[in-house]
Amino acid sequence: MTINIPAHVGMAVEEVDTPCLLVDLDALERNIDRMASFVKENNLRLRVHAKTHKSPDIANYQIAKGAVGVCCQKVSEAEAMVRGGVRDVFVSNEVVNPRMIDRLAALSKQARVLVCVDDIDNIDDLDKAAQRYNTTLEVLVEADVGAGRCGVQPGEPVLPLARKVSKAKGLKFSGLQAYQGKAQHVHDFNERKAKIDDAANSVRETVEMLKKEGLDCDIIGGAGTGTYRFEGTSGVYNELQCGSYVFMDADYQRIKMEDGRHIDEFENSLFLYTTVMSKTKVEKAICDAGLKAQSVDSGPAVVYQRQDIEYIGASDEHGVISDPQNHLKLGEKLRLVPGHCDPTVNIHDWYVGYRGDRVEAIWPVAARGMCL
Amino acid sequence: MTINIPAHVGMAVEEVDTPCLLVDLDALERNIDRMASFVKENNLRLRVHAKTHKSPDIANYQIAKGAVGVCCQKVSEAEAMVRGGVRDVFVSNEVVNPRMIDRLAALSKQARVLVCVDDIDNIDDLDKAAQRYNTTLEVLVEADVGAGRCGVQPGEPVLPLARKVSKAKGLKFSGLQAYQGKAQHVHDFNERKAKIDDAANSVRETVEMLKKEGLDCDIIGGAGTGTYRFEGTSGVYNELQCGSYVFMDADYQRIKMEDGRHIDEFENSLFLYTTVMSKTKVEKAICDAGLKAQSVDSGPAVVYQRQDIEYIGASDEHGVISDPQNHLKLGEKLRLVPGHCDPTVNIHDWYVGYRGDRVEAIWPVAARGMCL
Repeated sequence: MTINIPAHVGMAVEEVDTPCLLVDLDALERNIDRMASFVKENNLRLRVHAKTHKSPDIANYQIAKGAVGVCCQKVSEAEAMVRGGVRDVFVSNEVVNPRMIDRLAALSKQARVLVCVDDIDNIDDLDKAAQRYNTTLEVLVEADVGAGRCGVQPGEPVLPLARKVSKAKGLKFSGLQAYQGKAQHVHDFNERKAKIDDAANSVRETVEMLKKEGLDCDIIGGAGTGTYRFEGTSGVYNELQCGSYVFMDADYQRIKMEDGRHIDEFENSLFLYTTVMSKTKVEKAICDAGLKAQSVDSGPAVVYQRQDIEYIGASDEHGVISDPQNHLKLGEKLRLVPGHCDPTVNIHDWYVGYRGDRVEAIWPVAARGMCL
Repeated sequence: MTINIPAHVGMAVEEVDTPCLLVDLDALERNIDRMASFVKENNLRLRVHAKTHKSPDIANYQIAKGAVGVCCQKVSEAEAMVRGGVRDVFVSNEVVNPRMIDRLAALSKQARVLVCVDDIDNIDDLDKAAQRYNTTLEVLVEADVGAGRCGVQPGEPVLPLARKVSKAKGLKFSGLQAYQGKAQHVHDFNERKAKIDDAANSVRETVEMLKKEGLDCDIIGGAGTGTYRFEGTSGVYNELQCGSYVFMDADYQRIKMEDGRHIDEFENSLFLYTTVMSKTKVEKAICDAGLKAQSVDSGPAVVYQRQDIEYIGASDEHGVISDPQNHLKLGEKLRLVPGHCDPTVNIHDWYVGYRGDRVEAIWPVAARGMCL
């Protein structure tokens, strides 16, 4: 990956090689500041999700602005964060592979490490590994509050897991993981809010049940960019896990606020930079960013601040841009807002950070491809 | 990427870390042999498309079995192939970025390098770079034979480009690029064949027009895994550019042959290996391969040789597998056939090659992310 860097510091943005990821540093910093203010005003903790950016450079900036640490989804992703200087990492996911449990235990000797469980036997495996490495792993029980993915049902099913964790010699019971992943991209405000109200009610009940058994939840974690105001003002969640707010993407920008307007509290700071590489047709242009430069799982990219043209199709190495007024020229560069930022970032090795029209930072996507 | 290798040679396949790419070496070799036989029987050349596998290890095996060289779609991808020992590389795409044109010219001092053009001014840029590096670039004019992407229209519009190339001091006119990308995945046999018949007719006409001007096409190139029998028996195409046949994928296997059966001449040799990481629900399981382990642009993955379960949904790091009979167990491993092999490969750093139940090779996806 070192041999294929699309820019150097000091370069004009216009000169940067494409396709690549551009980051508007001013917009990134404003996004980070806005979330930090919300968290401070509401007496919450923010544990930013590093699965979005996979960059210790960005994580360390978020921590400098008040975040307590990061979430990761994979052990190898957590390792990349610790290697980059982050000292508080929650793998907000289950880890069942014995080799990866070993790596998790080993990592906890270099940083505070937390992990989720939703299976009673998995607790034994984590405990044994922690003891083998003479360390302590912090554990949150994951409750499925509507996403239908990992986690046991909230309420009673959480209790035996929490009890077992609290009695395990190598483990510490640290709370409840209750992320409603399916609510984040629901476009309608009321529908989205209702899902989080439901989640918060079942979380509140579960936390009280645990308390009656003497099991206090240091962390009651969840929330994403689409719903964090709901969890953050629920009175029950105390640690928010937003990730996408740093960059935003086309799909997040389709969700609506209470007044029906599209969400606008965070700015686009991440762009897929592309060049028109073929212009043999009047009504369209071909650019150099296709499926190997972005993930189209949540719909196509949107051309930033251009109403006259539209990104309408992607093949492996090409994008088709409709150009009904024949405005585009061969060699012209465009900024695309990715349809879905997380899996798009996961394709690229580098961020090209810029301020104004000048490249200011080249950051590795250090945890790119860290899927183990 | 070096720190996160999912296997080692000699390991049992069952022990390999997930998610990762598995390659069935027996099936891969049989696929390569089958295409090599077709090409030999029909007196054609095969220039395999390396954009599928991005691996010099696989490319060199294909060349040992008779391929004349490789196609790439990007200059940086071509560099990775040359670095891996390939000595004949065609960038079957336009290169318009001045820095990448320089890299292309520099590369041609280490290997035979060919490139496409579809713009008259681009020919000057290529010529100047070649002269600056005291080298020769071979150039094919790209004709758009129905894909609606890059390339000028076949016939008359090809002539001025071919003439200019043939007169440029740093360039050599090497022929016509005529790939019908839109035909490859057309499921219906007759519809697919009709598109290639149209393409072949316009190519034949164009080649004759060029011949009248004294411009011989050493290479008349095109064809993919979905249509190669049509181009290969057209009497006009002489160099096939198939890529996906080495691996196959779920979408290619939906296309049909003349008798209405699904195409079956190539086998699945590429799998996305995944583990059941959460099993808290009776009717489904959650596996560890989501959008960051595959591209779902052409539909979801298919669970290999299992009729009882189905991969039904992907989020960033999770896959949902329906399990109506509650067969799956936590920790169980499954082979998925990716929906679309090329962009799925482009996410991963390693191939784990196996024969029988034993890991036999670990190959880097050397050109992964090489999108410049």
